[in-house]
Amino acid sequence: MAGSTYGDAFRVTTWGESHGAALGAVIDGCPAGLMLDESDIMPFMTRRRPGNSKYATKRSEADEVKILSGVFEGKTTGTPISLMISNTDQHSGDYSKIASYYRPGHADYTFDMKYGFRDYRGGGRSSGRETAGRVAAGAVAVKFLESLGIRFVSYTRSIGSITADVSDPDPEYILSDPLFMPDKEASVRAMEYLEGLIAKGNSAGGVVECRISGLMPGLGEPVFDKLDAMLSGSVMSIGAVKAIEIGDGTAASLMTGLESNDQFTVTDGKAVKTTNHSGGTLGGISDGSQLCLRAHFKPTPSISALQHTVNTEMEEISINIKGRHDPVIVPRAVVVVESMAALTLADLLIRNMGSRMDDILRFYGR
Amino acid sequence: MAGSTYGDAFRVTTWGESHGAALGAVIDGCPAGLMLDESDIMPFMTRRRPGNSKYATKRSEADEVKILSGVFEGKTTGTPISLMISNTDQHSGDYSKIASYYRPGHADYTFDMKYGFRDYRGGGRSSGRETAGRVAAGAVAVKFLESLGIRFVSYTRSIGSITADVSDPDPEYILSDPLFMPDKEASVRAMEYLEGLIAKGNSAGGVVECRISGLMPGLGEPVFDKLDAMLSGSVMSIGAVKAIEIGDGTAASLMTGLESNDQFTVTDGKAVKTTNHSGGTLGGISDGSQLCLRAHFKPTPSISALQHTVNTEMEEISINIKGRHDPVIVPRAVVVVESMAALTLADLLIRNMGSRMDDILRFYGR
Amino acid sequence: MAGSTYGDAFRVTTWGESHGAALGAVIDGCPAGLMLDESDIMPFMTRRRPGNSKYATKRSEADEVKILSGVFEGKTTGTPISLMISNTDQHSGDYSKIASYYRPGHADYTFDMKYGFRDYRGGGRSSGRETAGRVAAGAVAVKFLESLGIRFVSYTRSIGSITADVSDPDPEYILSDPLFMPDKEASVRAMEYLEGLIAKGNSAGGVVECRISGLMPGLGEPVFDKLDAMLSGSVMSIGAVKAIEIGDGTAASLMTGLESNDQFTVTDGKAVKTTNHSGGTLGGISDGSQLCLRAHFKPTPSISALQHTVNTEMEEISINIKGRHDPVIVPRAVVVVESMAALTLADLLIRNMGSRMDDILRFYGR
Amino acid sequence: MAGSTYGDAFRVTTWGESHGAALGAVIDGCPAGLMLDESDIMPFMTRRRPGNSKYATKRSEADEVKILSGVFEGKTTGTPISLMISNTDQHSGDYSKIASYYRPGHADYTFDMKYGFRDYRGGGRSSGRETAGRVAAGAVAVKFLESLGIRFVSYTRSIGSITADVSDPDPEYILSDPLFMPDKEASVRAMEYLEGLIAKGNSAGGVVECRISGLMPGLGEPVFDKLDAMLSGSVMSIGAVKAIEIGDGTAASLMTGLESNDQFTVTDGKAVKTTNHSGGTLGGISDGSQLCLRAHFKPTPSISALQHTVNTEMEEISINIKGRHDPVIVPRAVVVVESMAALTLADLLIRNMGSRMDDILRFYGR
Repeated sequence: MAGSTYGDAFRVTTWGESHGAALGAVIDGCPAGLMLDESDIMPFMTRRRPGNSKYATKRSEADEVKILSGVFEGKTTGTPISLMISNTDQHSGDYSKIASYYRPGHADYTFDMKYGFRDYRGGGRSSGRETAGRVAAGAVAVKFLESLGIRFVSYTRSIGSITADVSDPDPEYILSDPLFMPDKEASVRAMEYLEGLIAKGNSAGGVVECRISGLMPGLGEPVFDKLDAMLSGSVMSIGAVKAIEIGDGTAASLMTGLESNDQFTVTDGKAVKTTNHSGGTLGGISDGSQLCLRAHFKPTPSISALQHTVNTEMEEISINIKGRHDPVIVPRAVVVVESMAALTLADLLIRNMGSRMDDILRFYGR
Repeated sequence: MAGSTYGDAFRVTTWGESHGAALGAVIDGCPAGLMLDESDIMPFMTRRRPGNSKYATKRSEADEVKILSGVFEGKTTGTPISLMISNTDQHSGDYSKIASYYRPGHADYTFDMKYGFRDYRGGGRSSGRETAGRVAAGAVAVKFLESLGIRFVSYTRSIGSITADVSDPDPEYILSDPLFMPDKEASVRAMEYLEGLIAKGNSAGGVVECRISGLMPGLGEPVFDKLDAMLSGSVMSIGAVKAIEIGDGTAASLMTGLESNDQFTVTDGKAVKTTNHSGGTLGGISDGSQLCLRAHFKPTPSISALQHTVNTEMEEISINIKGRHDPVIVPRAVVVVESMAALTLADLLIRNMGSRMDDILRFYGR
Repeated sequence: MAGSTYGDAFRVTTWGESHGAALGAVIDGCPAGLMLDESDIMPFMTRRRPGNSKYATKRSEADEVKILSGVFEGKTTGTPISLMISNTDQHSGDYSKIASYYRPGHADYTFDMKYGFRDYRGGGRSSGRETAGRVAAGAVAVKFLESLGIRFVSYTRSIGSITADVSDPDPEYILSDPLFMPDKEASVRAMEYLEGLIAKGNSAGGVVECRISGLMPGLGEPVFDKLDAMLSGSVMSIGAVKAIEIGDGTAASLMTGLESNDQFTVTDGKAVKTTNHSGGTLGGISDGSQLCLRAHFKPTPSISALQHTVNTEMEEISINIKGRHDPVIVPRAVVVVESMAALTLADLLIRNMGSRMDDILRFYGR
Repeated sequence: MAGSTYGDAFRVTTWGESHGAALGAVIDGCPAGLMLDESDIMPFMTRRRPGNSKYATKRSEADEVKILSGVFEGKTTGTPISLMISNTDQHSGDYSKIASYYRPGHADYTFDMKYGFRDYRGGGRSSGRETAGRVAAGAVAVKFLESLGIRFVSYTRSIGSITADVSDPDPEYILSDPLFMPDKEASVRAMEYLEGLIAKGNSAGGVVECRISGLMPGLGEPVFDKLDAMLSGSVMSIGAVKAIEIGDGTAASLMTGLESNDQFTVTDGKAVKTTNHSGGTLGGISDGSQLCLRAHFKPTPSISALQHTVNTEMEEISINIKGRHDPVIVPRAVVVVESMAALTLADLLIRNMGSRMDDILRFYGR
């Protein structure tokens, strides 16, 4: 099983390589009756695009998404939504050398071990470009969830050791920040840090945070398909993510029970938590408070600094990787994390509520 | 979908509540021909048991596992292996009060929101006792993987802020340590820390680490079912886990590409990494180096210290939770983390290699 | 993958062999709040039991079902329902010879080819006894569906060439008929036919029909998971079934479009079909009319008449199979067909409607 | 769940409507290293095309398939294979009237009930055109299986009551026959029968048979995922199929055990069945003999003869359906049945053998 399908009830299959004719995603199980056209998706593609910033690869594609099926007269029909993005700017020539050796930090070696050979053009299926399909599908999931009142705020929390003030993130500012940080001052410092790395042919990692509010209590299934587990699995499937935290995350292990437990109070006749250390879940089920998760990214492995490695003839060599590469992947990954979280939530919501849009809307009072 | 089944090819379904007649697990897809009897499973159950230590609940059950099917003349037959553990020491009387309010940090509130009511005896399905089924099944997965030469070392890495020296963990010592730490001195300090918490009716969190060696390269599927993603999803499904790290984990976001990339060298004619920052995976596929993951646990939510909460009549109340509870869950969770990791690896291995035991053994040179 | 799990949203895993300690089923995904106890299940087990009739195996077990989890205070909790049936009357001695050869019409040969060896006691996992778990789980699915007003009528339609009049099947009479036929006169003739076969150590086949009314329109998913496809897959998974028909079935291929199409009329302001050639589905989705399916069973392969076969030493031999065997499996299979149909419908209903019992009941006006 | 994905290990997702921009299929899990290009797929598309025959719709599209991903330097890479077929000849104008009423025998009514509205252009997703994606994917599955020595022969067995002599079907002749029958004389009579129906605006049904040889013993999983069950579910998912038979099928219910059992003999040191009533399976597992299945199709529901029905205003009306329709769907469905059978077999084979092409080839001695 090649693992290119995600979800049970809201199910996404992505396809495509960095340097093939196109990439895409097929969504199966989106409820019928959701207003949808390409303009809902393009802002997500734009957030993922390198843009003009010097902190991202020079490869620059429009990433125009076409909806090929599943939408009729402006509404989803309940049948598969096929989304396609043509590859228009691939430079296969750049990659000819890569065929012969294993880049450190990349999947070259493991693909060869698993399949016997690999599509070496731009990393093939293991390229970050694969996330274009995730983001196109994620945009549809976000549209569906937002139609129920669920809201996403996602941003770069840190780059290297430079951490943004995230006490009150402003969604509008975030979109205007070159690094999608919610804190201009930290963003400026992070850019200086990146400048230094670029000069040395080196790269940086960082952290993406995603907060989701307006979730009903009751999402997530006890035992293996806990909300936290499903989110971790989906977000960790983004290449370069090395750690996931929910709520207090790693800090929870340092607390005592009294510090970590969220106590309840009554507000408007409902049970409400007075704190949110748990990050929106209890026993693997959404508790109605804000869901909060963080994904930690390792630095971009493609660097032009000298590295030692092995070629396919099993000879030790030294390499400098040329080509168009991001000195940091984190800002462009913000929308990928949001997309994966949205795919997980849409899936769990439909597993819980069924796929009839009218029932779902009535439940949400819309 | 209630989510009590894990895995595609090596598939486990657990069932049972804290205070029902029994708990169990059904394994479907274990290859035929593996030697198996109850004595392979009992050491795992023992690692999960409270034992005599004062750092664990006073509930003390033999946790005798019965194999009810799937084994004939001492060997697995390829058909489902049904494992049952009778509940022999439940005290339902202890829990009658809990029915009326929502314990902070527990699933009481979310179960009521999701299902309309709950089995309040000992937390029902959300009890830590649910992990007995996981561990019984995990023991079978470990037996299968060890028959191929794959080895697990798992331990308590930290309790609160007290961290063990894990530079060279001794599997034998770990099993003898009261807290399953690989470092006696840290273990003694951790016990002192726990004593102080017990005195105040409080509790602690901590970190479990699991290292797996002998894995073939090629396990894990690109894109959504990456090895890292599958492990994160499965280990995060253990109640109380709030963060997962693979390899360098959160520290990777602070590194540069040059520091984080594992460079290759040639050893015995094979490509071998000179470091292992990635923790055994590249591009979501095992690279033949040691797999390393960490799970961060929040403190036990059941504490006897005074807490504020809400009852089912929506009145604010103060509570002291009585009963048998662990001041720290981490040591008993070590074997649960190992079990979940083993279930994930057995599943991915069979997805890659098929379910014919003779083929698998030949591939592994056994 | 060993394939012992059925369903996506209402999911059943069966386990157990003919001569093991016990058999069982785990249901995951049954909505919370359904009244359930063992007395709901036992009538189904009784329909599957050999009873006193001479047309069924002499093996006679109480087939007492125990509910081990998932029910609290008489109601399902939404967590897995574990059902166990102890094997109390297995005579392993009867089967020792079978280990050495391949019985015609049985799975002995294919199990050896697939797994390298087999549990030869009574057919092991391939025994008809495996259906005990299906029936226990099916009883729960029927209870769930009946709580919504869906009704099942199932019976023996034919044995050999003796076909019952099924124009107006009386559910009460069916249960009292020794062959579960809805037609006393046909039943008497069928018994005479069976007497003749028993005398020669031979056996008979037959047809089971199942009709289901009260289904909402809209169940079943277009394309691969059509209602007809899901029913066919589930009912064909019963050993000895060689053909499945929906509605007019094989006869449909002999009709013209004008004869086969069900035309619509208006009744009480609703579109209603004036005929039901399609058997309750259109485009793979339930249309609100009666669902009708037929399963064709081959004769029991275990016969005492002389047969030629091969032993595991690859020598040709002649055999007479001794032991307790049914001269016809069809009457006992009626409840198995009903159970599989119910499992499929419960699954598709929850996939469509979600798993919240209150939503489902409201939709059904209950 | 919308059910547009088939298979676990060799997994196909189809998308697209009759009158959208394109249709397609994504195959995930095809082993790496299979030689593949569009010319392998086009002969299958041609078998499904209406062609010049007057017994098929006048809609005539090239059905050019493009491989958009998953193939590199002429070989599959193990990553998703995206196949796209542009819709070039849709006439949406033809279908405007259909929006207002429910065609007998079609999915118009059930789609409206399920989704609240429908893409009425040419039946949308419920159109026979949906099978284009299945056939494109099926061609890849057949290529994979043929590379192991597995061979398919599929044909029209009957149209209405006119049945071909299928005692020795000649694959080459079948492809040249206008109705894909293996019997010229029967084909001529069938065409005369169809002429008569066309004159009356009526249509015919028929039966497709598929035989598969060269299968290894051991495919299919006991219990729910039996080979027979998986094939039935997949073939019954083709619109208009109303019955499925494996081996002797419905005739098995009329036989005695002695007649139905396939006895074994020894040939070349191996156990071989002397007859093949079972149609290639025993206990749901392939037994190495020829697999044989039949699918019974109802007549094309789109007929121009006068029919009564209901419009969406719930008024009774009379209609004549205009447009391009097949008087019989059976000949074009032959390749669809073969495709679905191939998808099922590829899936079960990989579930059994794993996805490593070198292991699979070695097992098959290639």
